[in-house]
Amino acid sequence: MEKLSPLQIERLKYQPKLPSSLSSGINCLEMSEGPATQSVRDQEQIQELFQNTYGKPVVTFKNTSSSHSSEVRNVGVILSGGQAPGGHNVIAGLYDALKSANSSNKLYGFIGGPSGIIEGNYIEFTDEFMNAYRNTGGFDIIGSGRTKLETEEQFKSSLEVCKKLNLSAVVIIGGDDSNTNAALLAEWFVKNNTGIQVIGCPKTIDGDLKNEQIEISFGFDTATKTYAELIGNIQRDANSAKKYWHFVKIMGRSASHVALEAALQTQPNVTLISEEVEEKKMSLDSIISYMTDIITRRAEIGKNFGIAIVPEGLIEFIPEMKSMISNLNDVMARMEKEGVAVSFEAVESRLDASNAKVYSSLPTLIKSQLLADRDPHGNVQVSKIETEKLLIEIISERLSELKSQGKFSGKFNAQSHFFGYEGRCAFPSNFDADYCYSLGYNAFALINFGLTGYLSSVRNLTSPAAQWIAGGIPLTMMMNMEKRHGEMKPVIQKALVKLDGPVFKQLEQNREEWAMNDKYLFPGAIQYFGPSCVCDVTTCTLQLERSKQLASV
Amino acid sequence: MEKLSPLQIERLKYQPKLPSSLSSGINCLEMSEGPATQSVRDQEQIQELFQNTYGKPVVTFKNTSSSHSSEVRNVGVILSGGQAPGGHNVIAGLYDALKSANSSNKLYGFIGGPSGIIEGNYIEFTDEFMNAYRNTGGFDIIGSGRTKLETEEQFKSSLEVCKKLNLSAVVIIGGDDSNTNAALLAEWFVKNNTGIQVIGCPKTIDGDLKNEQIEISFGFDTATKTYAELIGNIQRDANSAKKYWHFVKIMGRSASHVALEAALQTQPNVTLISEEVEEKKMSLDSIISYMTDIITRRAEIGKNFGIAIVPEGLIEFIPEMKSMISNLNDVMARMEKEGVAVSFEAVESRLDASNAKVYSSLPTLIKSQLLADRDPHGNVQVSKIETEKLLIEIISERLSELKSQGKFSGKFNAQSHFFGYEGRCAFPSNFDADYCYSLGYNAFALINFGLTGYLSSVRNLTSPAAQWIAGGIPLTMMMNMEKRHGEMKPVIQKALVKLDGPVFKQLEQNREEWAMNDKYLFPGAIQYFGPSCVCDVTTCTLQLERSKQLASV
Repeated sequence: MEKLSPLQIERLKYQPKLPSSLSSGINCLEMSEGPATQSVRDQEQIQELFQNTYGKPVVTFKNTSSSHSSEVRNVGVILSGGQAPGGHNVIAGLYDALKSANSSNKLYGFIGGPSGIIEGNYIEFTDEFMNAYRNTGGFDIIGSGRTKLETEEQFKSSLEVCKKLNLSAVVIIGGDDSNTNAALLAEWFVKNNTGIQVIGCPKTIDGDLKNEQIEISFGFDTATKTYAELIGNIQRDANSAKKYWHFVKIMGRSASHVALEAALQTQPNVTLISEEVEEKKMSLDSIISYMTDIITRRAEIGKNFGIAIVPEGLIEFIPEMKSMISNLNDVMARMEKEGVAVSFEAVESRLDASNAKVYSSLPTLIKSQLLADRDPHGNVQVSKIETEKLLIEIISERLSELKSQGKFSGKFNAQSHFFGYEGRCAFPSNFDADYCYSLGYNAFALINFGLTGYLSSVRNLTSPAAQWIAGGIPLTMMMNMEKRHGEMKPVIQKALVKLDGPVFKQLEQNREEWAMNDKYLFPGAIQYFGPSCVCDVTTCTLQLERSKQLASV
Repeated sequence: MEKLSPLQIERLKYQPKLPSSLSSGINCLEMSEGPATQSVRDQEQIQELFQNTYGKPVVTFKNTSSSHSSEVRNVGVILSGGQAPGGHNVIAGLYDALKSANSSNKLYGFIGGPSGIIEGNYIEFTDEFMNAYRNTGGFDIIGSGRTKLETEEQFKSSLEVCKKLNLSAVVIIGGDDSNTNAALLAEWFVKNNTGIQVIGCPKTIDGDLKNEQIEISFGFDTATKTYAELIGNIQRDANSAKKYWHFVKIMGRSASHVALEAALQTQPNVTLISEEVEEKKMSLDSIISYMTDIITRRAEIGKNFGIAIVPEGLIEFIPEMKSMISNLNDVMARMEKEGVAVSFEAVESRLDASNAKVYSSLPTLIKSQLLADRDPHGNVQVSKIETEKLLIEIISERLSELKSQGKFSGKFNAQSHFFGYEGRCAFPSNFDADYCYSLGYNAFALINFGLTGYLSSVRNLTSPAAQWIAGGIPLTMMMNMEKRHGEMKPVIQKALVKLDGPVFKQLEQNREEWAMNDKYLFPGAIQYFGPSCVCDVTTCTLQLERSKQLASV
């Protein structure tokens, strides 16, 4: 018997909550269909590309007293992309629904992400195996991967594997890209009369897979609470020791939802939001000025400490940095081709004048990182740039100048932190445990009603689980055409932070107060037991967005 | 009304548990005295230095049915040194005991650490103020500081402040140094017939203030659980993504108790312990070889991922590094005096040959950090050296060599982390909340019985709180003479990890198994509610040490 932690032992016993519409059992459901749907944009092109799966209705499940029997169905499941807390529970919900529909049903898990279905690498789930992973974090049950499932050849290989296992459906648990792939595979399977269905599930801690139909992706709740725990602890430390500024970088390359949510949960002194930087075309200099201003004003009232939240992707949203990095990628590629030795000078002399100026203004550490850490395509690995240290170093210099001019008489000692891996595999919060289990259970309901090209949808999430609404959304409904690697492609729109949305507004209205007056909140560790007001509350983001949505109805 | 997090609201209501001996009230206690005590070493010198407070007995409290009334006593309290979860509860226990003894009693808090008593900077506690901090983390209630209370002048200033406030006692909450200072102040107060008592409380997340009499310092439980939560989450991520080695540096400059405890709670692949490195005189090269061996062996079985725990103070325990840093401090001081510009070459040419060799072998990043980050005395700030990155860089180079020799065919991608500030101010675990409250409550009992120069002691900590044993230990009993800044001084012995102790043995017996076979444990977030097996269990360190202690009785 494997040794387990006390929490793990207790969490294995937790029975996730289901919407009441699903809780009478998978064979006691009826489905209602809405009207035909359209994609969010580019309707003609999307319809052309998804001739067989376009325009389907939104569906909703209700329970019924009459029970029907289900035919035997084998299903395969894939975890795709980065980890998010609750992935194991999606599979548990799917497994329980599938087995309760018909005990002869089988669930297969493809190993290591989408490559598992292409290469025929799989396991069959059993009760014992499944039970060891209930309510745990991580994707280690079958592993995940980042292979993109999108070519004709990959589809054909997948079909062979599905046929061999006699699958009637595949469930893909992933983010926007993986669900775009799910839509493509669904269309291809129908076009080729395979009879195999494809259902997606909305996963990502980034919180950028959401829209009119999806209130939130799973994992966002747990990950943001874990980061908020740490930020709150650091705030308490800063407020006790009163000697450090803590710069905390938070995972999230494109959207800043995670940083924004963590900020609302903790109320730090400074919060940068990438979307604001881009939309307002803020320069690095103006960001530094904004932060330096708060640091000096706090120092004037004797506060030589504070907390600043920085989203991981910030640097790519600063127009001048984006331009410089793009130019740098070209320059480095050329230099490699020509066999020129890499040096600061060599690079600067080859960059366009404005980009060279930006590059040369950076601290040495960052200049080195920009040259050193490159991905296999030779591009800068922006995730490896220590943006938090970049800011600290430039602000330090700025404050030294101000000090020499008599405009700053405080102290500036900074500590940097980066939180990402700390939260992606936490034990799912009660919210994520319930939501994920429901998404998985519901995915099988969609399969059982013969649907394909749908995303498993559970809505009304700020109400108690019993009142959640289960159903399905056609994947094509969320798509539009976007340029990818120079080509127009159908993709699910990524949701960025909206500056006119209620979540950003909450920050905007309070940030000057939080900057100066230390309104720190201390969320503490995620609680799985105890008062419901502590262990069952979801994120500020979801609550604010739902309130606005409900108010507009 | 200040906005609070849901957990904070609920934790304010928590009533910490007391030993049953204290739970009948402060006026229903009787005290039993053991025989006269001796200091652990250097008895003659310690007795000479503490003529008035040396040799006192260990005392223990029992409750009695007869109630006695208490005279009016005002007490001052000081938080000293780095934050540790539970400090607020020590004060809450002290406050409750003091007020229940006599409602006219007053508790004063000195602001910003020991400097508060020297400068007369204080606040008076009220119910409302105290209640806002119950069961919270941090030292922000009155702040802390690192001023050493040890000179005649400081003692005189303190006395003036104590007289002004009509104090009968001062409680100092701190680590080994602060409690050494408490012993000095206690002796001085008696010698000068001030009638003012001094009581210490054992604080430090480092876990190095423990001995035959003190089972553990407070804060260790909560801090290690917070770090273990994060390490567990990262292990789950590593085991899911299977592409990164995570190097996790854990706070703790001298002793490695925190790293060791975090390792026992999570069972990572590699754990370095500073005391082992020093005792076995391990070179940097041998540490690198040890780690590289595990990395290559794991790669051979397809595992290009893992977790390594590195104690913060490691570098100072590697004999050759210690020697080089000491030499470097001298060299840098000389260069500054002579006005020589600092460069790698200038430094290398001035270091002794063997030290120069060590210095020049280091990666550029670390060579820069050794020159750049110096404290006000011109010494290397070892805490700013990114040891985790040093190891990653050297291991990377080593693996490249092995690859070119055909001895390594895996991949090595590493992520680094440093956890310290994340855990020092977490909401205290139930254990720390109860232990701290008891320590504070008990401190007042010691005061009420007229004792001075004692450490508040609560023992038998692996039993339920009701069975804890409350009493006091003479501070002199834990002291010996050690060289500090070239002079022999009386100090409380710091407890380092013992290689023949049960805690290190637990690691030693299992580490090869953990290195290869991924026996990761996932402790998850600290739970304050729910099953007792989850929310009331203390650390492996305390359990193992207590078991051994009990077995030897």
